[in-house]
Amino acid sequence: MTTTLQVQGMTCNHCKMAVTNALQELEGVNRVEVHLEKGTVDVDYDETKISLDKLKEAIEEQGYDVK
Amino acid sequence: MTTTLQVQGMTCNHCKMAVTNALQELEGVNRVEVHLEKGTVDVDYDETKISLDKLKEAIEEQGYDVK
Repeated sequence: MTTTLQVQGMTCNHCKMAVTNALQELEGVNRVEVHLEKGTVDVDYDETKISLDKLKEAIEEQGYDVK
Repeated sequence: MTTTLQVQGMTCNHCKMAVTNALQELEGVNRVEVHLEKGTVDVDYDETKISLDKLKEAIEEQGYDVK
């Protein structure tokens, strides 16, 4: 399934890469797209393999708040 | 000598690290301090070993504008 997360504090391409890489390395995550301007992250993932909470945790570990 | 550069576009700690690391790896650079809030970079360097232009280039290569 695909979900869109609201993420606060992503300001530059380094942030974009940090969030993208943190999510992409998780098993069950198929595709990640960060939109800096909108402050959103689209994640396509397999909900039988990973939970939404785990996705949020991975982003928060990079230092960003997920709404 | 120590100089203060005005640098545009540094928004977060990733930017701070990118600029700090790019400068610190240059021969002749002794100390680097990035002030995100002010958009400035203090560089203590040996002007017999490296020119101010080289410092600016290293910052610009990271994607930031030096005023």
